[in-house]
Amino acid sequence: MAQNAKLLIRAGFIHKEIAGVYSYLPLGLRVMEKIVNVIREEMNAIGGQEITLTALQDKKVWETSGRWDDSVLDVWFKTKLKNDTELGLGTTHEEQLTALMKDYIASYRDLPRYVYQFQTKFRNETRAKSGIMRGREFVMKDLYSFSSDQESHDTFYEKVKLAYSRIFARLGLGDRTYVTFASGGSFSKYSHEFQTLTEAGEDSIFVDEKKKIAVNKEVLTEEVLKDLGVKRADLVEKKAVEVGNIFSLGTRFSDAFELNFVAQDGSKKPVIMGSYGIGPGRVMGTIAEVLSDKDGLVWPEVIAPFKIHLIALLDKEGKVQAYTDALYQKLVTQGSEVLYDDRDLRAGEKFADADLIGIPYRVIVSDKTLAEKVVEFKDRKTGEVSKIGEAELQKRLLEKAK
Amino acid sequence: MAQNAKLLIRAGFIHKEIAGVYSYLPLGLRVMEKIVNVIREEMNAIGGQEITLTALQDKKVWETSGRWDDSVLDVWFKTKLKNDTELGLGTTHEEQLTALMKDYIASYRDLPRYVYQFQTKFRNETRAKSGIMRGREFVMKDLYSFSSDQESHDTFYEKVKLAYSRIFARLGLGDRTYVTFASGGSFSKYSHEFQTLTEAGEDSIFVDEKKKIAVNKEVLTEEVLKDLGVKRADLVEKKAVEVGNIFSLGTRFSDAFELNFVAQDGSKKPVIMGSYGIGPGRVMGTIAEVLSDKDGLVWPEVIAPFKIHLIALLDKEGKVQAYTDALYQKLVTQGSEVLYDDRDLRAGEKFADADLIGIPYRVIVSDKTLAEKVVEFKDRKTGEVSKIGEAELQKRLLEKAK
Repeated sequence: MAQNAKLLIRAGFIHKEIAGVYSYLPLGLRVMEKIVNVIREEMNAIGGQEITLTALQDKKVWETSGRWDDSVLDVWFKTKLKNDTELGLGTTHEEQLTALMKDYIASYRDLPRYVYQFQTKFRNETRAKSGIMRGREFVMKDLYSFSSDQESHDTFYEKVKLAYSRIFARLGLGDRTYVTFASGGSFSKYSHEFQTLTEAGEDSIFVDEKKKIAVNKEVLTEEVLKDLGVKRADLVEKKAVEVGNIFSLGTRFSDAFELNFVAQDGSKKPVIMGSYGIGPGRVMGTIAEVLSDKDGLVWPEVIAPFKIHLIALLDKEGKVQAYTDALYQKLVTQGSEVLYDDRDLRAGEKFADADLIGIPYRVIVSDKTLAEKVVEFKDRKTGEVSKIGEAELQKRLLEKAK
Repeated sequence: MAQNAKLLIRAGFIHKEIAGVYSYLPLGLRVMEKIVNVIREEMNAIGGQEITLTALQDKKVWETSGRWDDSVLDVWFKTKLKNDTELGLGTTHEEQLTALMKDYIASYRDLPRYVYQFQTKFRNETRAKSGIMRGREFVMKDLYSFSSDQESHDTFYEKVKLAYSRIFARLGLGDRTYVTFASGGSFSKYSHEFQTLTEAGEDSIFVDEKKKIAVNKEVLTEEVLKDLGVKRADLVEKKAVEVGNIFSLGTRFSDAFELNFVAQDGSKKPVIMGSYGIGPGRVMGTIAEVLSDKDGLVWPEVIAPFKIHLIALLDKEGKVQAYTDALYQKLVTQGSEVLYDDRDLRAGEKFADADLIGIPYRVIVSDKTLAEKVVEFKDRKTGEVSKIGEAELQKRLLEKAK
């Protein structure tokens, strides 16, 4: 089993239903929600409007673009209504959204439009052995842009590129995530992938570490190297996982669906489209792969399920429990996110669980710390331990864990 | 087409994909999220822990409970992996969650557990003609309880009943929603439905308006009337829609899955379960049915997509636009949720759209109001109009629209 799935299952973040199909338990759902919120903030900041399309897909819509046939799109799950009408389960949503936008785009005044969703995709992968890094059912953020001309499309495309860079930086993957040139299809020379370096990745990319760009193996030609001003000798082959991608669609779908608009000069023109994906679950799996250590998960603060893991090492008189219960209430009341472990277990077991779960700051209360009027404060990432009074704890939490 | 779908489509809240399958557009998604948040708050307040299970369902799990066969559960959508392994699309999640909880429940110390999710259900309904009140694909909040004995189960069941009453009261449906006695299955005499009175409902219930309880047609017997202390003569038959239901499952699923625990006395016992559903989309559809008027939708403040509909009636000099742009920025900066209509359309069209969309407070700026140094403030529900200065506007928004 992939390392991300192994760790996340053992730590109680996810549950495997079948290969490539994972449920999210309370800890895992909290991480997912935080990843989703970082992405949502950046999508709203560039003018994205959030919607939710459906999983059940009308066959007719996909016949319009010529992608209904299993030989064209080979990851379909299909099903049917009681009257035998065939339906597909959405693997992606270009078709459905283009058809929908015909109701909302008629004039240049209706453009541009940037529409996104967090929606469950179903992909009938033959192999699904990478944990939550490649699922048969998974949540995807997909943004679609609708522009009146190539120039405004290009401008927005660059905006998304920057937004994606901000997202991966905020999620703690910035320094190992490369904008990677990949093949572009009929309407543009390149598409761009965001590839995060990890041995667990399924892709091979060629990285120029100084220039901080990369080239996907599939487009590594002399012509492309020249285009990008990159020397073959400066490239190192690395394993990576594609955490995001952005793609110019041109008029591929607007032609098929006749998604046209009346321009300012009265002429009828097809809408220029783009699509932009990030899989929050894949991001979570990637973070589990690259930021964990031998003891378990290590969450960046911004997406940690809780900021503080509060551990009471119970004494027989109940003093520790009483003190820690009160401290827990105090911390929660002041808005800190605290996971409280007051289980009646040995200290070693509780510490091992805390290491495995990977919450950034651990606060330990024992009869010893009570006697000294301190708590023990441990940083999960650095391992640094200090004994501090309650006033200092409050101060640190205000600084760090808000 | 059902009235709720007609209104919500015309006002741009939802989009029909196929019968019973609706996408949520920006306005609709905002309403859904607010309904979801009200429910989430109440679920968390009674100790619920949020998770997300999956749509793709393992056939084996459903064979364990005997519900895989289409003759037992007649709303299955089924699909298959490339290797021909059959999968189901989740119509409900008792089976999957009971199987999952075997990993987390072993001892009385692990009980009780209250687990809930907001998850997409797929139901292959033969007819789906009630708009978003009965979908083939829809989001459901389903809560499941795991208790060690009947008494603690019963206590929690009553807690959920109260939480549900709070939810429907907060959503503006309290006065027309009845706790309705329905058949209970093998493990309890009754289950309880929350039925909201509306001519658009598919159910018939018998209502005692004074006692504020109701009886589902299916259990209306002399014995039941005696049980509930209700006289037949006091009952009025009404059409209603089931917006929620709560159900004691007893050991139906824990027996099938051998979900047992070691009790304090060392004996092995089956877990006592309950399930508790609310469909946020159905609630939204119901509100569209019962709270709209001849001009369109009328959202209760708590779930309105925005609190304020700001309408600029543009003049040629651009004074109105400049003033309203600045007012919009001011309102948004201070945290108000504002939908801004600065389209270059006739006043009548803009007012008709605003009535249709149904945002609680409308603020109109025109050259006339500018000259008088006021804005026009209109309450969507009462129709009351007043002319007020900006200071008074701020005050009202702080009071009403925060």
